This record gives sequence, C-alpha cells and structure tokens, in this order.
Amino acid sequence: MNLSDTIIALATPPGVGAIGVIRLSGEDAIVLADRFFHGKPLNEQPSHTIHFGTIRDETGRIVDEVLVSLFIAPRSYTGENVVEISCHGSNYILEEVIRLFLRAGARQAQPGEFTLRAFLNGRMDLSQAEAVADLIASASSEAHKLAIAQLRGGVSDEIKRLRQELLDFASLIELELDFSEEDVEFADRTQLHHLIDRIQTLIKALLDSFQLGNAIRQGVSTVIAGRPNAGKSTLLNALLNEERAIVSEIAGTTRDTIEELLNIQGIQFRIIDTAGIREAHDTIEALGVERTLEKVRQSAVLVYVFDVVKTSPEQVRYDLDQLIHSDLKVLVVANKMDLNPYTQFEHYFEGAGIRERGLGEQGAQSSPLDPLNVSATQWVPISAINRMNIEYLKEKLFETVIQEELSMDTAILSNTRHYEALQKAGESLQAVKQNLQTGVATDFIAMDIRRALHFLGEITGEISTDDLLGNIFSRFCIGK
Amino acid sequence: MNLSDTIIALATPPGVGAIGVIRLSGEDAIVLADRFFHGKPLNEQPSHTIHFGTIRDETGRIVDEVLVSLFIAPRSYTGENVVEISCHGSNYILEEVIRLFLRAGARQAQPGEFTLRAFLNGRMDLSQAEAVADLIASASSEAHKLAIAQLRGGVSDEIKRLRQELLDFASLIELELDFSEEDVEFADRTQLHHLIDRIQTLIKALLDSFQLGNAIRQGVSTVIAGRPNAGKSTLLNALLNEERAIVSEIAGTTRDTIEELLNIQGIQFRIIDTAGIREAHDTIEALGVERTLEKVRQSAVLVYVFDVVKTSPEQVRYDLDQLIHSDLKVLVVANKMDLNPYTQFEHYFEGAGIRERGLGEQGAQSSPLDPLNVSATQWVPISAINRMNIEYLKEKLFETVIQEELSMDTAILSNTRHYEALQKAGESLQAVKQNLQTGVATDFIAMDIRRALHFLGEITGEISTDDLLGNIFSRFCIGK
Repeated sequence: MNLSDTIIALATPPGVGAIGVIRLSGEDAIVLADRFFHGKPLNEQPSHTIHFGTIRDETGRIVDEVLVSLFIAPRSYTGENVVEISCHGSNYILEEVIRLFLRAGARQAQPGEFTLRAFLNGRMDLSQAEAVADLIASASSEAHKLAIAQLRGGVSDEIKRLRQELLDFASLIELELDFSEEDVEFADRTQLHHLIDRIQTLIKALLDSFQLGNAIRQGVSTVIAGRPNAGKSTLLNALLNEERAIVSEIAGTTRDTIEELLNIQGIQFRIIDTAGIREAHDTIEALGVERTLEKVRQSAVLVYVFDVVKTSPEQVRYDLDQLIHSDLKVLVVANKMDLNPYTQFEHYFEGAGIRERGLGEQGAQSSPLDPLNVSATQWVPISAINRMNIEYLKEKLFETVIQEELSMDTAILSNTRHYEALQKAGESLQAVKQNLQTGVATDFIAMDIRRALHFLGEITGEISTDDLLGNIFSRFCIGK
Repeated sequence: MNLSDTIIALATPPGVGAIGVIRLSGEDAIVLADRFFHGKPLNEQPSHTIHFGTIRDETGRIVDEVLVSLFIAPRSYTGENVVEISCHGSNYILEEVIRLFLRAGARQAQPGEFTLRAFLNGRMDLSQAEAVADLIASASSEAHKLAIAQLRGGVSDEIKRLRQELLDFASLIELELDFSEEDVEFADRTQLHHLIDRIQTLIKALLDSFQLGNAIRQGVSTVIAGRPNAGKSTLLNALLNEERAIVSEIAGTTRDTIEELLNIQGIQFRIIDTAGIREAHDTIEALGVERTLEKVRQSAVLVYVFDVVKTSPEQVRYDLDQLIHSDLKVLVVANKMDLNPYTQFEHYFEGAGIRERGLGEQGAQSSPLDPLNVSATQWVPISAINRMNIEYLKEKLFETVIQEELSMDTAILSNTRHYEALQKAGESLQAVKQNLQTGVATDFIAMDIRRALHFLGEITGEISTDDLLGNIFSRFCIGK
C-alpha cells in the first residue's frame, strides 16, 4: 500500500447541487493545491482555516471560484495533510479540477482509501472505520444509532481492553515455554480461567446481539402472505400510508422497486408483498406454495393474513403448517374483524390486544392458545380497511425484533465479519479452557491463546492483512 | 422578502457520498448552530475557521460527528452569518440535522435563496447571480467559460459603467426640466449623442454575440438527415466513438435519451438522429418530408449525408431544396468516398479539405461551387465506415458556430433575459437619438433615457422588482 502519494476524489455525491467538494490527502496535498489555487499561499496558513480564491489551470484560465479548507497533518480525517476544495456543483467543473490535479501528479483515490489511510495512520481502529461506511448507509434511526455507537468505539474499546489482558497472560505463558525444562508457572491458571470466562461472557452477549444488530443494519425482511382476498394489499397500504415518509423531503432517494420500506420506531422493515402471486392463482395450495415458501424462507418475519369471516381455523392451521419454519417470527393477522368481531377465532384472541376503535380493549398479551406452538406466534385481530388495530400490529412487528428499549450503551454486533471473528475467538478460548482442565502441554494452550488474540485483534484491526483491508475498504464509496 | 430569518438547505446533491454539506444563513445562524453543536462555542470563534465536534439532538443523542465551517457577516457568500455543516453523506443523517434546525426555528430555503440574499446584500449583481446558475449547469468548456466570465462581471461591469455615464446625463436633463421656462441646456447634446453611440455600439456587439452565446450555453442543435443507406448511423457512430466521453468518470450523469451529445473543442452539439425516420420509409420524398423538416426547422445546423456512389447531383440538390431554410447552417457530407473517390461530385470538392488517409490533401477551403448559393454550405467528403475525414468534419461543425477563437475578454451574451433587456434599451436610445435630431421637447427625451436606464439596470439588478427576482431565482436549485 502506497501512502506517500497524494490522492484525490469527489467527496460529495455526483449530480447537480449548489456545491461539490473535492478532497485531496497526502504529504503534498497543500503544495499541490497551492499550484492551482490563486488567493493566498496555502502553505503559510494555519490548519482548520478556509480561504477564498480561484482555481486556475496551467494556462491561467479560471476553472472556478472556490473555498479551500485546510487541515494540516496530523489534525485531519486521514491524519495526513488534507485540502478540501468546495466548488460550484457542476460535474464539468468538478471533473476539470480533478483532472488538473491528476495531471499534476495526484492519484485518483480507491474506494475507501481516505478512511483506509485514517486507519493506517492510527486515526481510528478498524471497527470504527467500518462504522463510517455503516453510518453513510444508515437509513433508519436504529441503524444510525448502531453505527454512531460503533464509530465512537463502543464495542471495540471493551474488546481491546480484554484482549490486552489476554495478551499480558499470553506473554507469561510464552515465558513459561522459554523455561519449559524447569516446569514453572508464571501465569496463574485460575486467573486465566476467570479472564477467559469474562471474555467468553462478552463474546456470548455480542454474538447473541448479532441477529438483532444485523436486522437493524440490514432492515428486517418481512413477508405478507395469505389466501386471495384476505386483504394483503389493503393491509400493506394501511401500514405504509400511516408511515411518515422518511426520505420524502430529499429528492433523489429511490425506493426499492421490489420491497416496500416501512419504518417502525426507527427499525426498517423490508416488506415483500406476495400480492403479485395472489393475482395469478386461486388458493395458497394452488399457487405452488413454492414461490411463497421461497420468499418466506428468505424472511425473518411472516405476517400471515386471513379473512376472519371466510376462513376456518383448520384452513389457518393448514396454511401456517405450510409456511412456518423454525427461525421465523410469525404474526397471525385476523383481518375483517369489522365484519365479524366475534367469530370462531374468538378464543385465539384471548389476551391479545384488541383495543382500538370498536374492537374493545383487552390488553396486549401473547395468546396462551397458540394452536401451532410456534413460540413467537402472535395473534393480531385487525380491520385493514378501517385501519383498526394497525398501530397495535406495528407494535407487534416492532416487538418481533426488539423486546426492550435499546440504549446507546447496549453493545450490539451488526457486522458479519466481527461475528465470524468473535465465533472463532470463542472457539479458541473454549479450547484453552478444555486444555487447562485436561492438563495439555503449555505450548498447545499458548497456540490457542494466540489464535484467540488473532481473531479479537482482527475486529479492531490490531491484526490486519492486506487481504482483509482490501476486502473491507473496497466496499466503501470513492471519496470516503 | 424576509431577510431576517435563518434559512437552511442541503448544499450538496442528494444521494450517497462521503460527505454532505448543510448550509445555514442568517443573523442567528451561528447562535442556532451553537445550540446543537458540541465541541466549542462557535460564536467565540473567528470567521473562516473549521471546528470538529458532534451534532446532538434535543435529547442529547448524537446525530453525527461533523466539521463546522464558520463565515461571519459580511465575509460570506450571502453577506450574512453562514454556517456550513459537513456531515457523513447519508440521507438519513442529513435529513435529521435539517429537521433539528427546522424545529429550532430555521426555515427551509427557497430555490436560489442563498444567492438571492447575496444579491440583496450587495455581494454580487444580478447578472453575476445568474452566472452562478449557469456555472452549475455548464456542461462544456465554452459554456463554462461564458459563465465564469459573467460571474466575474465581464459584461455587467461595462454596462454598469456606461449606464452610470448615461445616469449623469439624465440628471442634467432632469435638471433642465426643473428650469424648463428658462430654456437652458445643462446637458451637452453632442456629448449625449456620442455617449449613446458608444452604448449602442456595445449593445449591438452584445446582441450580435447572443446567437453564439446561446448556442454555447444551450448546445448547438444539429440534425443529421439523408436518404436511406446514406450512412447516417455510421456517421453518428463515427462522430460519437471518437469523442472522449466527458463525464464518464463521474457516475450518475445521464445522457439525454433523445439527443446524442457531441463535444467538439468545448462546444456541445446536441445531435438529433433521424435514423428512426429512415427505417420507416424509402426515400426522403416518401418519408413525409414533414417530420424531417420539423426537426430541421428546430435546428441550427443540418448535416446532410448522401451516398456519393448512388446519388446524383440532381437528387442532392432536390433534397437540399427541401431541407434548407434561411437561418440554417449546412454541411453537405458526401459519404462512401472510399468506394468511389472521384465521382460526378468531384468539382464540388474543389478546394474542400480532402486530406485524411487515402483521400488526398487539398486544403480546407469552402467550396466556390456551391450549387445552392447557401452561404454557409460546406461540402465535406468522408468515408464514415473507415473514419476518413471525420476530424475534418468536426472542424467544419465547430466552424459553423465559432469562426475565431474565443478569449476570456470577448463579451458574449448568453442570457435571453439580458438579450431582451438590451434590445429594449437599444430601442429607447434610438428614440432618444431621433428626438434629439428632430428637436422634440426635453421631457420626451428624458422619458426615453429613463426607459433605457431602466432596461440597462435590469440586467445588473440595479433596477429589480420582486417579480423579476422571483422569476430568476425560482430556476435555481435549492441550497444555492
């Protein structure tokens, strides 16, 4: 990795706007900027100052009137000299300015290269660097909260601290290896045992939080399924129409064409509508349960809707038998309650929350009469067309993901790479514990501790390889 | 127009990027920013400095880690206190930050409102403000050159100077009106005559430059027409393939779906392909000359292509008779010269530039044997399939727009509003001259001078109405 050259990239999104910002980073960034900036000599100015002037090309032609922001190493994002040039937001101008600097010896930055340099120059650890990409991609308040917590070192600080303790132990163990003929124990085995317990407790808590973290980061894949005319589309509309469109005020945000996005209390649900399937066929059996099943298999939550008037409990049970698999969270939604609020399903709703307009108030407990014994199954009576109990349904949807309120202090794992590294670290520590108990030779114990140290270090970047870094930063956008 | 409140808008294009910049302007901009910025007190910092910190919402939750740039009035774009907040480039974050300030009393800026305030606060004249929008929209080097010249006051400075001289004369004339019984002449009529001549000379030069300026700013509408199998598509491909795609390196730039854009030496040609028409019909006569004629009527340049082997001079003449109208510039392109370089058209090419691979070298003069006597008609022999003489054709295309090299000092008018105002100012001055000669009463002369002053002042904004300003700034993007 070449850190000595000066890299350049557009830091703002492409397109027409009032301004566009070009970022230069590297030892020569300020000297290079001085070559084309006409106003005052930039290399005589203090850090964190802004200067008005013109950018002129080699022939003296004015390319733009600009504001230049100076960041002198190490007080910058990358830890290097950084110059940000704020131009008028025309692609033509931005490209001309970038070309000018490329001709003068700057190099087009690779994706994530500014953040990579920040990491390599010790401005942030690897987990924080990854949080930058998460932060930019965050589209809901909870995903944003996770990214901010990670950016500010939430998880990695604790991992670093425990890893350091383990490292101290490891040195003692390694010392024992040097004196292996003398059969001494520098490292207190009981203390090591306790330390490993503490690390394993942290690892378990983090691993347990991953499903939630991943759901928050990626959004919760949710499928709405049910027989024809059960009211799936009406339900989807009722859910979406009440939503305050999160990105409506900023133009250019496109909705995923296949999935509808529903934001409930800061969690994004990616709702897969099976309406298209519905139209083509008559009954769930006939629609080739295949395609619906495929969608359900890919989802974390199933919202099964049925017409409370026209469907028998046996039919509901039959459909759910077809649809439900082990990891799925299920909401069984009895629709059209306005037509027939007290039906043969009545006993299923005992304790369920029928509390909105006309549906009475019965508290919001899980039904004790779950006919399928699927642990997470909840019965929710609604009337989609009258929007009755829709808010309650949303609460239930939210609860499928989050049972208790998230605080900024809850350490939540959201990154697959971290999850895998923690799993491997946990396995290595488990091996250490077993070997301690069975009295295996010290060099085996030392090897497993080294493995655990390696995997813990990979999370924060204390251990990193070019492959690992390349893999992480290639997913960034250019300019970050 | 309310100038007392603080306005806010996203200044960078929407979409995902490394950073997004939010701009606040108004007397309270810094105080407002201080309310949510945690780092150091911004209102104690000097102008043109940058500060790292966090934006926290009312509950103390961190919305983002940001860099804040401070511009203290009047040293800012708008002339007011300005704060620019550089956030991570996530729509979610940018919207949250904007919402935070809206809740605290800032107002979403109208399109162009930052630039409008810059104008109203005397930071730029109206012509310069309009140049900002042109600059952002500029997509070719010549359009960019025009906008930069206008931004830097090129045209408006001279108009302002001459208007001031006229204003001085006007005061003397108005003075005469006050002493009208005494029949005195404070204003020297000969000097006034000379001054009007000078203004008219400037106006005429500017009006004459408008066609060029408008072509540069909007691009030159160019239609390729010809009989079936003349090689129109091959020619279009040859023209486009050799073009270095100007915006290819920056993602998100979309091509117009109907027109192809060809950039020749910084001039943008918007090429309308009539290939679609070609497919549907057999000959130009049959294709209902209507649709082709319609396109030709809307264009500034016609590239007429014919197959040099299969077309007779009479057929070419017939087609051109159909297609050509008075204002049109025409290039007559003899294609397939590789098949039959010396044909019955030979004498048309006398003096024309056949100088590329295999076509010989004969210099690049206009043909003296123009069979149609259309002044701007040029004969260009090519072989589209072999790319012979394509560069020469491009030169000829360029010359239809620009005969001599543009310098930064050439005052060129590109704005329709300015064109109309100058026309009216010119008419008023003409009336003044006539009235001076025929000895009409001084108050008529004074009235026409006032009219001329009004229209000249409208260009630079020394005279402006709410309607005029609304009309101009509503075309800006929000955030500028």
